[in-house]
Amino acid sequence: MTYQPSFQDIAHLGHVELFTPKIAESVAFFKNVVGLHESGRRGDSVFLRAWGDYALHTLQLTSSKTSGMGHMAFRAKSAAILTEMTGYLTRNGVQGKWLDHEFGHGPAFRFAGPDGHAIELYYETERFVPTGDQVPGFRNQPQRYSPHGIAPRRLDHINLLAKDVKACREFFRDALGMRVTEQIVYDGDQEMGAWLSTTLKSYDVAFTKDHYDARGRFHHLTYFIDSREDVLRAADILVESGAFIETGPHKHNIGQTFFLYFYEPGGNRCEIASGGYLIFDPDWKPVIWNKEDRAKGQAWGLQTVSTFHTYGTPPV
Amino acid sequence: MTYQPSFQDIAHLGHVELFTPKIAESVAFFKNVVGLHESGRRGDSVFLRAWGDYALHTLQLTSSKTSGMGHMAFRAKSAAILTEMTGYLTRNGVQGKWLDHEFGHGPAFRFAGPDGHAIELYYETERFVPTGDQVPGFRNQPQRYSPHGIAPRRLDHINLLAKDVKACREFFRDALGMRVTEQIVYDGDQEMGAWLSTTLKSYDVAFTKDHYDARGRFHHLTYFIDSREDVLRAADILVESGAFIETGPHKHNIGQTFFLYFYEPGGNRCEIASGGYLIFDPDWKPVIWNKEDRAKGQAWGLQTVSTFHTYGTPPV
Amino acid sequence: MTYQPSFQDIAHLGHVELFTPKIAESVAFFKNVVGLHESGRRGDSVFLRAWGDYALHTLQLTSSKTSGMGHMAFRAKSAAILTEMTGYLTRNGVQGKWLDHEFGHGPAFRFAGPDGHAIELYYETERFVPTGDQVPGFRNQPQRYSPHGIAPRRLDHINLLAKDVKACREFFRDALGMRVTEQIVYDGDQEMGAWLSTTLKSYDVAFTKDHYDARGRFHHLTYFIDSREDVLRAADILVESGAFIETGPHKHNIGQTFFLYFYEPGGNRCEIASGGYLIFDPDWKPVIWNKEDRAKGQAWGLQTVSTFHTYGTPPV
Amino acid sequence: MTYQPSFQDIAHLGHVELFTPKIAESVAFFKNVVGLHESGRRGDSVFLRAWGDYALHTLQLTSSKTSGMGHMAFRAKSAAILTEMTGYLTRNGVQGKWLDHEFGHGPAFRFAGPDGHAIELYYETERFVPTGDQVPGFRNQPQRYSPHGIAPRRLDHINLLAKDVKACREFFRDALGMRVTEQIVYDGDQEMGAWLSTTLKSYDVAFTKDHYDARGRFHHLTYFIDSREDVLRAADILVESGAFIETGPHKHNIGQTFFLYFYEPGGNRCEIASGGYLIFDPDWKPVIWNKEDRAKGQAWGLQTVSTFHTYGTPPV
Repeated sequence: MTYQPSFQDIAHLGHVELFTPKIAESVAFFKNVVGLHESGRRGDSVFLRAWGDYALHTLQLTSSKTSGMGHMAFRAKSAAILTEMTGYLTRNGVQGKWLDHEFGHGPAFRFAGPDGHAIELYYETERFVPTGDQVPGFRNQPQRYSPHGIAPRRLDHINLLAKDVKACREFFRDALGMRVTEQIVYDGDQEMGAWLSTTLKSYDVAFTKDHYDARGRFHHLTYFIDSREDVLRAADILVESGAFIETGPHKHNIGQTFFLYFYEPGGNRCEIASGGYLIFDPDWKPVIWNKEDRAKGQAWGLQTVSTFHTYGTPPV
Repeated sequence: MTYQPSFQDIAHLGHVELFTPKIAESVAFFKNVVGLHESGRRGDSVFLRAWGDYALHTLQLTSSKTSGMGHMAFRAKSAAILTEMTGYLTRNGVQGKWLDHEFGHGPAFRFAGPDGHAIELYYETERFVPTGDQVPGFRNQPQRYSPHGIAPRRLDHINLLAKDVKACREFFRDALGMRVTEQIVYDGDQEMGAWLSTTLKSYDVAFTKDHYDARGRFHHLTYFIDSREDVLRAADILVESGAFIETGPHKHNIGQTFFLYFYEPGGNRCEIASGGYLIFDPDWKPVIWNKEDRAKGQAWGLQTVSTFHTYGTPPV
Repeated sequence: MTYQPSFQDIAHLGHVELFTPKIAESVAFFKNVVGLHESGRRGDSVFLRAWGDYALHTLQLTSSKTSGMGHMAFRAKSAAILTEMTGYLTRNGVQGKWLDHEFGHGPAFRFAGPDGHAIELYYETERFVPTGDQVPGFRNQPQRYSPHGIAPRRLDHINLLAKDVKACREFFRDALGMRVTEQIVYDGDQEMGAWLSTTLKSYDVAFTKDHYDARGRFHHLTYFIDSREDVLRAADILVESGAFIETGPHKHNIGQTFFLYFYEPGGNRCEIASGGYLIFDPDWKPVIWNKEDRAKGQAWGLQTVSTFHTYGTPPV
Repeated sequence: MTYQPSFQDIAHLGHVELFTPKIAESVAFFKNVVGLHESGRRGDSVFLRAWGDYALHTLQLTSSKTSGMGHMAFRAKSAAILTEMTGYLTRNGVQGKWLDHEFGHGPAFRFAGPDGHAIELYYETERFVPTGDQVPGFRNQPQRYSPHGIAPRRLDHINLLAKDVKACREFFRDALGMRVTEQIVYDGDQEMGAWLSTTLKSYDVAFTKDHYDARGRFHHLTYFIDSREDVLRAADILVESGAFIETGPHKHNIGQTFFLYFYEPGGNRCEIASGGYLIFDPDWKPVIWNKEDRAKGQAWGLQTVSTFHTYGTPPV
């Protein structure tokens, strides 16, 4: 039988590359304020991970003329699935190329999504191996919890702006096997946002309508932290560091996560989040939010700040 | 030596009377949603308390044509102090009268503050005596923790609108012995807000400038809850109950408390708060916030919603 | 190709039936103290669910002469998988029978696990449909959050005592497609405990060695709550209700969850837990804890109380 | 009228001196793991403070042959009160001496309490003045919150072992004006513990019966942190640092605080705590806990570990 991508054929979001025009400031910010750990450097890039990430890196910062996303990479569930899925993509007209020597993982198939976002699929992964004072006291954790800065546990999800939300939603569902969990649909057919999951989390990737009808832009990257109290603590750390907090902490209707948005020195929006819900029902139907729902603001009534709807990277 | 009011001669804010044009709805809201307990009824009033309040009541709801504050009552440290302080007030031209038969406490001296707010001083207090399933498991708590609704621990503070913030601040400092802890002063001499304490909490009473230059209006009443996580939980409870959340949860610069503001059915603004700081330094100097500070919004950058500056009860 | 059970063919633990010799007290406890909701009654059973459970019930309490587990039920990912998996079981010598008229779900295949525990597999599920004041304010939640009692979000996992941990581990891995996530192994080959998952949670089912070498006994059932602060609040609620707290709150090494164990009136051990970690790595290798690890106690050094190792239901 | 010490004549516990046979390790531990800040060094001592302490130091670590407490110092409410109180002590036979050149504060009167504990009273205080990246974003905080290590907010209280609890309780009540808030009394008259307060916190100083009938020993020193979630985070930090956790996190019956006890490298017991209750009632009567109460363990039933009753510094 011919392979069809199905739910959870992709194991998880593996890492994201962000472009930054201020590489030194961005690296210092992610290390000292966010509390990530440096895994290595190669060329114009610096690689980082959170203490609870099992892979060698989940964030790649690359020096560039402007801000924005370089690429996002998803780990396939197995080598066989990687072969099948990339074959499926090729058969269906997706043009991609294999990259064999990237930092931290094996062969990756890179291609563009419907809106032009660069996507990679890979399977082989280099794991983080703790040494010295990074060896954890708990055998089931990849690294000792590091009490400096915000110190989130792990990479959580990515949110992208799209000229065509529907096309992105359908591609990620049909070609990458993701589950559509929640949507914003105005006036019955105008897709303003789509949340998709490749795990039991309520989302791993989200697309929201680009205010300027630009293509392939980046909205934000999110690291997860264990408690909402940690998110509140993160807000204090960000204020004290002089970082710009755009909105939050507050609770999202969509995903029910407790969010905090800020800009890193290179201009990219980032989020620290906690909470949310897991989806155990295998027959989950997408939850649809309409214009009236959205007019009520976030979960506890906070009106979304206008920049949240308009600001993306790179700037248009 | 002649008595002069000094810090902590008033032990604490004892209770607050709120007027409500919807007495049944207000009582149901404070009992079922906020999670207070009814202590008794008399005349047009219903008396309530939080599970951690030692006194028989901390809130009096009185049926009335409009919303607003009936009076606020402070407990003197001792019977002797009550005598001294009321004598001091009388000597200094404050006209008041003794009320001998109020619910839940002994003789109270009632008078008007500089802005016309009704104030009572009393000492003798009727304590709550738990019976049946209200008897606490912990000998040092007045009542069993009651897991229904928001369930705050205790009354915390009151915030009043004033035409003349300076006069209020000076009266509460000089005649009631309170400590000025924080202030908002615009352009060097325009007093926009004053926070005063009669305990080691950073404030027990606050005055903020009335947007309409009205006199003697009420801004909000606050119950304290143990954790910020409880405040977040309260927000969900309020949303689910259909209550109007005005702003929050977020953190105040002033007092550093974690706040959540909402309106009870009668129209009065209420707050659930946690956190904040205690003042141990006996020589504390008032912290002054200026216009530039205020323009930055609340602690994590949230812009204060306009109604917070304009809405008070009764409506003007 | 012949069907082989694979990871996540079972969607999740669906519900658990507990026997209780004190049905009225057990029902009252789960409703008033734990804060579950009654879904219905049939015969000697009462059916309950947490506010965040999508199914009509996750707990069945059945009046019985003694305590213990009636059965545990797992929901298959699809009708096709249910057919395949039950076929696989039958082919491999597992004797079971189909039950067609159970409360809240479609046809279920009931059989005994290696240690004699009663297991059901089913697919068709009756969903909870909120009405009146149970309709949630959030479209992605099955029911309004109900602020009474402990109010956990959802059923999380089950822990069973076993005479033969190894046999149970292998059966749940090979016949039910579960992932072995963590193990306790003494002296290199003595299996004292096994944790298995059918989701991305670190476990959904656990087996620990029966102190008395009895077969098929029950250790505990766990409901999940969103924050560790909620677990602490649950401890106060339990103490005030007069329930017996066996141990906790504290953090498990295994699973890294924050636990609280108590006995319901019928004598069965229950847990309220929060936290823990998700497993995104598709190649996760079981974490092995040895005798020296266990001698150190729980995550922060708490020595496990002896009853935790010896007490199960029904009593031996 | 002759001066009599009264409640709150002492403003607060100012600082504590701990002896340590491992000064370098102790300093490193308090700075890197606990997250205190060094204020200065003089002679054999290193001075430290928490980020929320207004004074230049709250902890003095002094190199010594053994562990134990050097002295504890209380700040009088005013210079006048200091004069009055020391006069009162002298008139009542307490022999003390004035120390004029100590680090961080003005003239201090040093004397021994009934059990031989060294006590100082002082008024003039050197405040911490933040510079550079320690300048806080919030005008009402003494220093920027520092996200490294446990990072408690402030010194909270001290707990001392005493051969004669009753004598200590009476002296701190009568000569220092403290309020007795809670007590442990066995068999109607055997005083096993006394908690006293000079603030509205439920205690600032505690005495518990020395298991060995030794005199003047030290039990523990406590720093306060804002949330119970922070205490749980502290437990992880301590485990990962290799520190010895003696007991907790759990909740005390007495004071209702959420505690975590550990030993610093010099052997002295320390505590990180949060929560608790404030006493607003000016007529508070001491809460008496008896032997039966104590047999029930801590608030949620944890049996107190035996070392907690027997271990003090210096060792006997």
